[in-house]
Amino acid sequence: MSKAEFPSTSKPLPAPAMGEPFLLTPGPLTTSLETKQAMLRDWGSWDADFNKATAEIRQQLVQMAGVNDDSYTCVPLQGSGTFSVEAALATAIARDGKALLLMNGAYGKRAAQTLDYLNRQYIFLDKGDYLPPQPDEVAEILDKNPDITDVFLVHCETSSGILNPLKAIADVVKSRGKGLIVDAMSSFGAVPVTVDEVPFDVLVSSANKCIEGIPGFGFVIIRRSLLEQAQGRAHSLSLDLLEQWRYMERTGQWRFTPPTHSVVAFHKALEQHAAEGGVAGRHARYSNNRDTLVAGMRAMGFETLLEDAWLSPIITTFFCPAHPNFQFKRFYDELKARNFIIYPGKLTIAESFRIGCIGQIDEAIVNQLLNAIKQSLHVMGVDDCSPAEITKAS
Amino acid sequence: MSKAEFPSTSKPLPAPAMGEPFLLTPGPLTTSLETKQAMLRDWGSWDADFNKATAEIRQQLVQMAGVNDDSYTCVPLQGSGTFSVEAALATAIARDGKALLLMNGAYGKRAAQTLDYLNRQYIFLDKGDYLPPQPDEVAEILDKNPDITDVFLVHCETSSGILNPLKAIADVVKSRGKGLIVDAMSSFGAVPVTVDEVPFDVLVSSANKCIEGIPGFGFVIIRRSLLEQAQGRAHSLSLDLLEQWRYMERTGQWRFTPPTHSVVAFHKALEQHAAEGGVAGRHARYSNNRDTLVAGMRAMGFETLLEDAWLSPIITTFFCPAHPNFQFKRFYDELKARNFIIYPGKLTIAESFRIGCIGQIDEAIVNQLLNAIKQSLHVMGVDDCSPAEITKAS
Repeated sequence: MSKAEFPSTSKPLPAPAMGEPFLLTPGPLTTSLETKQAMLRDWGSWDADFNKATAEIRQQLVQMAGVNDDSYTCVPLQGSGTFSVEAALATAIARDGKALLLMNGAYGKRAAQTLDYLNRQYIFLDKGDYLPPQPDEVAEILDKNPDITDVFLVHCETSSGILNPLKAIADVVKSRGKGLIVDAMSSFGAVPVTVDEVPFDVLVSSANKCIEGIPGFGFVIIRRSLLEQAQGRAHSLSLDLLEQWRYMERTGQWRFTPPTHSVVAFHKALEQHAAEGGVAGRHARYSNNRDTLVAGMRAMGFETLLEDAWLSPIITTFFCPAHPNFQFKRFYDELKARNFIIYPGKLTIAESFRIGCIGQIDEAIVNQLLNAIKQSLHVMGVDDCSPAEITKAS
Repeated sequence: MSKAEFPSTSKPLPAPAMGEPFLLTPGPLTTSLETKQAMLRDWGSWDADFNKATAEIRQQLVQMAGVNDDSYTCVPLQGSGTFSVEAALATAIARDGKALLLMNGAYGKRAAQTLDYLNRQYIFLDKGDYLPPQPDEVAEILDKNPDITDVFLVHCETSSGILNPLKAIADVVKSRGKGLIVDAMSSFGAVPVTVDEVPFDVLVSSANKCIEGIPGFGFVIIRRSLLEQAQGRAHSLSLDLLEQWRYMERTGQWRFTPPTHSVVAFHKALEQHAAEGGVAGRHARYSNNRDTLVAGMRAMGFETLLEDAWLSPIITTFFCPAHPNFQFKRFYDELKARNFIIYPGKLTIAESFRIGCIGQIDEAIVNQLLNAIKQSLHVMGVDDCSPAEITKAS
């Protein structure tokens, strides 16, 4: 074992139960033991105690988006975040509408695939693997295509880890009077998005991202007047967001069986989110995680895909070293043996991997990870972490 | 407190954690502490350890349906059971197909509502609140409507608690060469359904029913040749069962973020299901629960909606007493204060309520419930449990 070179400077978070690995992934992520312990009882989905948790969650989420009146509502939906994005797209875009999809990674592409199923018209701006859509490009497309009704943007595209320029694009979209649909799946709760700064119409996220809950449902924060117009738009009984909302408003219950344990865990996770200082507190911890990670990795010779200005506090993409002894599978297994689960890359241009900064991890744990990476490279016989020349050209 | 008149004769199951109430509902239900404790760690949805749990679950479920070759496969899907029914209907019924829906309660009606969203043709036989569809009626409809391609039946319709005559109807459907789609949501795992006896094409159930898991996903057991024909049928990205299957077969992973904790809890619940003697063991316990419940309730003067021959071991509907002091809301609250959550009725013909027999409950707990009911009626001043005359006419 090589000497630990990344010493801890902060009091560590409690270790996860049962010696499990830390998940340095874009969610599901490492959650607190307290959050998981909330799942140690069963709840009647019809019962008032459970309904109270649902109501409080909905209220806290709209408040987190900076909404202090009833102009927006929050509709949770069973399934993964993709289910909520699909429901949101079907609800927000009229059957005769036309969307502009801003793409720079897998989640922008997935929106196009969804609209293909939905038979909704769209055009797209595809910036490839990781370049950000520019506000002036968006303006030009909107001006040339007045029939566009809605614009879709992924806030943090975890394919690359980029934090897209949401506010500048929102301003362009709103200046043209178009609807704005934000996939804030991996950013909401840790990167500030409030309606006063970013006048979105629809924002989608899920339980198992920056609020550090358990997977099982997503949620849509939507302008109420838009939701009320959505009659007849849904293509699916299960994903009919308007009906989900109506039923919930009328009865306090979920329309179909909710993921009860995931819901109460999320309720508990929201308490901890508030105790940490809300979005600002979480942003500070995650940003510090990222800064510690990136500095440590660069000290070892790794290179990030993105320039600093585009690095999100959510997940960072690193190029694989060109060294012949470096194999991602082996690297993954070595790190897993040291209790860290990292994430494969998703670039077409180069071999890469990703490391998440979100979940119950802090600077001390990031430093442990950096030591584990150093040890893993040592046993693999990788003494140079520079990427292949071609990838630097980007 | 009145004297306990329903003494326990068996060793009770362990009490749930944290003094929580027993859920005498059709799911979510009371699960074992061991099952819930499986959720005390986090899992990477991309990691091999988690994929192994998914693969084992899929294999065990097809085996539970009596399949010992690769003619059927199991496809789990995020969301509530309704999501899986919707996905199954979209997959099994061709876009130019036509279904016969056999209805006697809410879940048969929900299938019709789903097909309205899907733009699939159907006709239906609606037997009202609780009467069973008869095999000869089904035969007559199929013979008069040769364009019908598929028949849909709810095995246990929890609206009333009836166990529909699945085998006899399956024989009729198969003798006419039609597809058979079975909603076995609330029966699978406790009422034997195997392909040798019931030659279904598609069977749907969910995690939080008789296998006693945590809500978060459903699953579809489907004839592989039928699934392979389903290209282009899906109406939804998230609910595309064929793509979910292809991705899972290719990668071992779920296509979109799985409800990780619910999946590992289900894996643990399956171990306990096997240890109890599988479907036969669970059928015996639930049937004994029902027999104890029905005998005890009748001894107090309550009447069941259904004759004995139609009572499922899943849930039983009782008429509300006609006594002027009986109010369901008060009855519910009195029982909840005594740690039992029961379920409201769903009949149009009469006031009723339902009590489930499934989950981690046994004869001893049913006897505790019966005592709690007796006490509740006493404090409410209800000394006669006969239903109103009109309801007896059924």
